[in-house]
Amino acid sequence: MPSDPVRVALIQMACAPSTEENLDHAVDLVRQAARAGAELVCLPELFGAQYFCQREDHRLFALAEPIPGPSTARLSAVVREAKITLIASLFERRAPGLYHNTVAVLDHESAGPDHIAGIYRKMHIPDDPLFYEKFYFAPGDLGFRAIPTSHGPVGALICWDQWFPEAARLTALEGAQSIFIPTAIGWHPSEKSEFGAAQYSAWKTIQRAHAIANGVFVCAVNRVGHEHGDVVLSKPDGTATDVPGPGDHSSDGGCNSGIDFWGGSFICDPFGRILAQASPNQEEIVTATLDPALVETTRQHWPFLRDRRIDAYSNITSRFLD
Amino acid sequence: MPSDPVRVALIQMACAPSTEENLDHAVDLVRQAARAGAELVCLPELFGAQYFCQREDHRLFALAEPIPGPSTARLSAVVREAKITLIASLFERRAPGLYHNTVAVLDHESAGPDHIAGIYRKMHIPDDPLFYEKFYFAPGDLGFRAIPTSHGPVGALICWDQWFPEAARLTALEGAQSIFIPTAIGWHPSEKSEFGAAQYSAWKTIQRAHAIANGVFVCAVNRVGHEHGDVVLSKPDGTATDVPGPGDHSSDGGCNSGIDFWGGSFICDPFGRILAQASPNQEEIVTATLDPALVETTRQHWPFLRDRRIDAYSNITSRFLD
Repeated sequence: MPSDPVRVALIQMACAPSTEENLDHAVDLVRQAARAGAELVCLPELFGAQYFCQREDHRLFALAEPIPGPSTARLSAVVREAKITLIASLFERRAPGLYHNTVAVLDHESAGPDHIAGIYRKMHIPDDPLFYEKFYFAPGDLGFRAIPTSHGPVGALICWDQWFPEAARLTALEGAQSIFIPTAIGWHPSEKSEFGAAQYSAWKTIQRAHAIANGVFVCAVNRVGHEHGDVVLSKPDGTATDVPGPGDHSSDGGCNSGIDFWGGSFICDPFGRILAQASPNQEEIVTATLDPALVETTRQHWPFLRDRRIDAYSNITSRFLD
Repeated sequence: MPSDPVRVALIQMACAPSTEENLDHAVDLVRQAARAGAELVCLPELFGAQYFCQREDHRLFALAEPIPGPSTARLSAVVREAKITLIASLFERRAPGLYHNTVAVLDHESAGPDHIAGIYRKMHIPDDPLFYEKFYFAPGDLGFRAIPTSHGPVGALICWDQWFPEAARLTALEGAQSIFIPTAIGWHPSEKSEFGAAQYSAWKTIQRAHAIANGVFVCAVNRVGHEHGDVVLSKPDGTATDVPGPGDHSSDGGCNSGIDFWGGSFICDPFGRILAQASPNQEEIVTATLDPALVETTRQHWPFLRDRRIDAYSNITSRFLD
């Protein structure tokens, strides 16, 4: 495993209704990060569209695409050109009627199609008001993974996964020394004033805790912007259909519906210390250098992997112990 | 299960070399908390002595006692008198040559000896410079538990357990809606300026994360004071032997050895929000009211128990997946 420090960039971006536009924008930002020295870059969850899961609409399955597919083809060009590793979250069409929320890790040294070094399919699928993901995504069936890259094994989890300590633990046990977590999380406008601070704090706290519990770097990347989930569907004949999201889109009332994505992308070290942190309100490239030596030093001083009671954890596979 | 809110008190205290003195002091503080309305009270880890595990000394096994035993007899009196539930951390002598770091939960309604409703034996045993616990304590063999009390099932973990998400998860799956964590954690004086803030932050972060991940209240209670682990051993014949701990005890040099226990006892709610927090430097009784209704509301809004991928967690029982 390479022991060299790696320069990481998280692309905190806003997403438009058009996939073409988002891909252009993402490629620009990735190229900009690479020019500034980034070797390992991560995009936010489902950056190819506005967050469309705010309603259940069968037409939106048309957004899904195979992996490899058009998006990985497009992204692989910048991966090759900039000689980087790129973690990209995509709406995967695996088979007719079978879709996943999937991360593809593209590595310039990978010989696979579109430089794909490996994929991870979101294991924990949420279903909450405005986050109707169980309608769109089948739960992942690949388990938790450390995907080999030119910068060593890299773990990926996706959004809702971030709330499950088991996910981070298993990813670390697979050998990942860093876990990237593409995310699309935000406030319901009606809840923000009462619960917003606690929700943001809980989100950051539990992810820092994954770093601490496992002695790994954690890199969480979120989108920004206020979205109703507006989508432009392009048809093979070149025409396009606007599919506006739910809620009040008027300029004066629109802020009371939709989701206010909170940004706040961050990188923390294996003891949960924040190395870099984005603002909540704007696009930003968050960078830090991850030194694998710090994983080993931290784990020597806080030897949790040594002391885990693996003889006593088997009930973790129970739903409840009643 | 009772659904009434319960008034909780954590006894953040300093510990003296003499067990008798510590028991007197603990009983005073518990009585004081009960007079102020506390119904469920928790003492810090091994409050009956200075933190003696700073060295490996066979003489110190003499501090251990059976459960039930002299300490639970003494504590049961205040439990009965004040009609409370008390969580007490003790150095348990289970058999000749077999010792545990154990919590006893005493409940005024329990018909057991000394009102003992149940015990929990520390599952994760640390071994680090000045924390030589693997010398003294056999790992617990009772698993993770929710101990029935007159205030519903109560979970207990002990210090080093607090770094293991599996421990909190399994305790919650057993039905505990609150987890009490008696602790003896502090800074090595030589490390405090460089690492102190990060260590304290990690400690608080991971415990708040247990609350968030499981939708339970977490109540962490630590001791305060600078200790070298000085102990007074009382013999059956009424005589006593001073056993000073390691390090420089001189008034000018003593602050460079021993452990500086950082206090900071806190209570957080099922979404990790701090309800009450002690200072780092002084004895303090930390109180809050825990409302079980908040456990259910929080879990309805953040339904992690619903979405756990119990089909995919079996590798948690592996040491590493290489």
